[in-house]
Amino acid sequence: MKAVGVIVEYNPFHNGHAYHLQAAKDAAQADIAIAVMSGNFLQRGEPALVSKWYRTKMALLNGVDIVLELPYQFATQKAETFANGAISVLDAIGCQSLCFGSESGDISTFLQTIDYLESNKERFDENIKMNIKTGVSFPKALSLSFQSLSSSENLLRLDKPNNILGFHYVKALKQQKSLMVPLTVKRKNADYHDEHFATETIASATSIRKALFATNENNRSIEQYVPEATSTLLIEYLNEYGNFHAWENYWSFLRYRLLHSSPEELREIYEVEEGIENRLIASALDSSSFTEFMQRVKTKRYTWTRLQRICVHILTNTKKTEMNSTLEKAAYLRLLGMTKDGKEYLNKYKAQFTLPLISKLSAYKEKDILLDIKASRVYSFGLGKQNGNKLLHQEYKQPPIYVN
Amino acid sequence: MKAVGVIVEYNPFHNGHAYHLQAAKDAAQADIAIAVMSGNFLQRGEPALVSKWYRTKMALLNGVDIVLELPYQFATQKAETFANGAISVLDAIGCQSLCFGSESGDISTFLQTIDYLESNKERFDENIKMNIKTGVSFPKALSLSFQSLSSSENLLRLDKPNNILGFHYVKALKQQKSLMVPLTVKRKNADYHDEHFATETIASATSIRKALFATNENNRSIEQYVPEATSTLLIEYLNEYGNFHAWENYWSFLRYRLLHSSPEELREIYEVEEGIENRLIASALDSSSFTEFMQRVKTKRYTWTRLQRICVHILTNTKKTEMNSTLEKAAYLRLLGMTKDGKEYLNKYKAQFTLPLISKLSAYKEKDILLDIKASRVYSFGLGKQNGNKLLHQEYKQPPIYVN
Repeated sequence: MKAVGVIVEYNPFHNGHAYHLQAAKDAAQADIAIAVMSGNFLQRGEPALVSKWYRTKMALLNGVDIVLELPYQFATQKAETFANGAISVLDAIGCQSLCFGSESGDISTFLQTIDYLESNKERFDENIKMNIKTGVSFPKALSLSFQSLSSSENLLRLDKPNNILGFHYVKALKQQKSLMVPLTVKRKNADYHDEHFATETIASATSIRKALFATNENNRSIEQYVPEATSTLLIEYLNEYGNFHAWENYWSFLRYRLLHSSPEELREIYEVEEGIENRLIASALDSSSFTEFMQRVKTKRYTWTRLQRICVHILTNTKKTEMNSTLEKAAYLRLLGMTKDGKEYLNKYKAQFTLPLISKLSAYKEKDILLDIKASRVYSFGLGKQNGNKLLHQEYKQPPIYVN
Repeated sequence: MKAVGVIVEYNPFHNGHAYHLQAAKDAAQADIAIAVMSGNFLQRGEPALVSKWYRTKMALLNGVDIVLELPYQFATQKAETFANGAISVLDAIGCQSLCFGSESGDISTFLQTIDYLESNKERFDENIKMNIKTGVSFPKALSLSFQSLSSSENLLRLDKPNNILGFHYVKALKQQKSLMVPLTVKRKNADYHDEHFATETIASATSIRKALFATNENNRSIEQYVPEATSTLLIEYLNEYGNFHAWENYWSFLRYRLLHSSPEELREIYEVEEGIENRLIASALDSSSFTEFMQRVKTKRYTWTRLQRICVHILTNTKKTEMNSTLEKAAYLRLLGMTKDGKEYLNKYKAQFTLPLISKLSAYKEKDILLDIKASRVYSFGLGKQNGNKLLHQEYKQPPIYVN
């Protein structure tokens, strides 16, 4: 059986995802699709709208055959580390190819760009340093340097979010000496961060989430932008757990953490550097919402996303000492769900997987999965007390979701 | 001017307190009464019903002339440490006498008992150790040992809570070589922990709090048991801040803290010993209320009060390293409020105070007051977001309450 790997968040699963998934299977001529999906907290430093179990169901009902969790230490990270984790998971489970969506849509451009940057590494690094000195954030400096160096070549546009991710996927493939073949399909219409609905049937996850959280009665329905299973499962989630997860639900806990901790304690947290801890504490004292807090903390030097990621690590109490040694490759495959075909694949090839497969948390006691456990515990605080307890206990007892 | 010192929590101020205060002034032939009062968290390991500012107003409107805050490191403590802090505050501000309520009511019994225990120290300590080996809590062992050793003498009954406190006050006076004269008045009617109303006008603070938190319509009014100022201020507090403070309001935060911390981190917290940290984490996982949690955690070895104190220290993130060096004597006098007479006293004698007087937090940057600041920050989380912020900012800006 031939498997194509995809790297996803499905927050929530929408028509654009369905399109990409089909295109990936076609391009790879694959029998099944395997998704590595962020769990509780996402790349941009936000809690997932609904639990990973619900997002797994959405995926399995819409064409994915196996869903694996991207471990916490890779999920809430800059593109490079995110890519390292995701590629190592898909490689370990034996995907023959990787397919990602990009603004470019042309895989040779990715390969050329990587070669170009490798042969111009020194000049490039020098240029980034110069740009950082002007006070801009690292991603901005990267993008500026790239533009200035590559203007004459036919290279990737690295100011586009999906191109950047794809670039790091292909780079990780190379670094990890993975045999997976990289493929890319051009993204349809909606830009990654679009807050508005763009076309008749395709909209960004951002605009869909925005519509879900809108409280005015005029908000447009999301139904034309998501498969039926997504609509149904979102309603089911509200019925079962009472609310979607958003940063504001965690604000009191983040603030409590910031106001009882010393700057020294906060400096032990992953990515807390350069005195940002003092700024975080002072801003927390005066803010009564997460948005207000973020607006106070924001500087030119830190992107909103980077700050949100720092906040996630503070919220989950993730220390530098817990992270730094584990960021090269994943250490396990956490199985969240499978279809009948996915099950067949697992049974057929599991002896060849290069990482241990975890089907049930309670059966696995290794220290390596502690970060995921902590993230699940903290994620449950985004719900009311009873519902939070229910979700937390599911984490320990839930066998992988099975869709026939 | 002659000042008598009293050691109080006023949670809330009731008729029994008014009676004791008058009796103290009479017994001491004092011109003014100075109270050292617990701030945000109390000796039994509970948040105060209403803020220290409201409790200060109650005190000043009912006969106290100066209210000083008992610093956090003494307030949420076993009787001995609590007494060390309280006595050192009253001594530093120049009280000529100390008056406390007790079941005994006879000061000579306290003095005799202290002498007796000093001369029988070895036998007594041996006996306590034996009792602890049977698995009972330390206070229980103390009380049993005392009974077995003192049955033939005319000594204090050390199984009564106010006798125990008084015993430690007098002991602390002696140890600190204070010149304050100890006085005691017999407590009227209500036992310390009584949950039911005992007489027509005197009821324990416990029974008053119970009535305040009761939600059924049949609950008896507290008005006959408290001065008018208390009733009025309690209603005002609800109007201004939305709710009274109780452990259940802090439960989510305590649970969050327990579920994101490692056992090693919890062991750094003051009074977390003997593996109790593992029991606390496991119990927090399964409990959806503070009461449920405490019932799971409770063992014969730990009193309810001791466990609650541990929970307060976890909630406020108070480390062993922050506490152990500061438990002998207070380092400052934090002025919460004064009457006209109190102000006169302060002006007249402040040059002779043996500790610095803090009138406004924002003017005082010493490291020593950090524990009080942290306690105030955490205490504010017992209110809704907006009201919590309001209370927290008051902590920094509030000048001492003045009652003419």
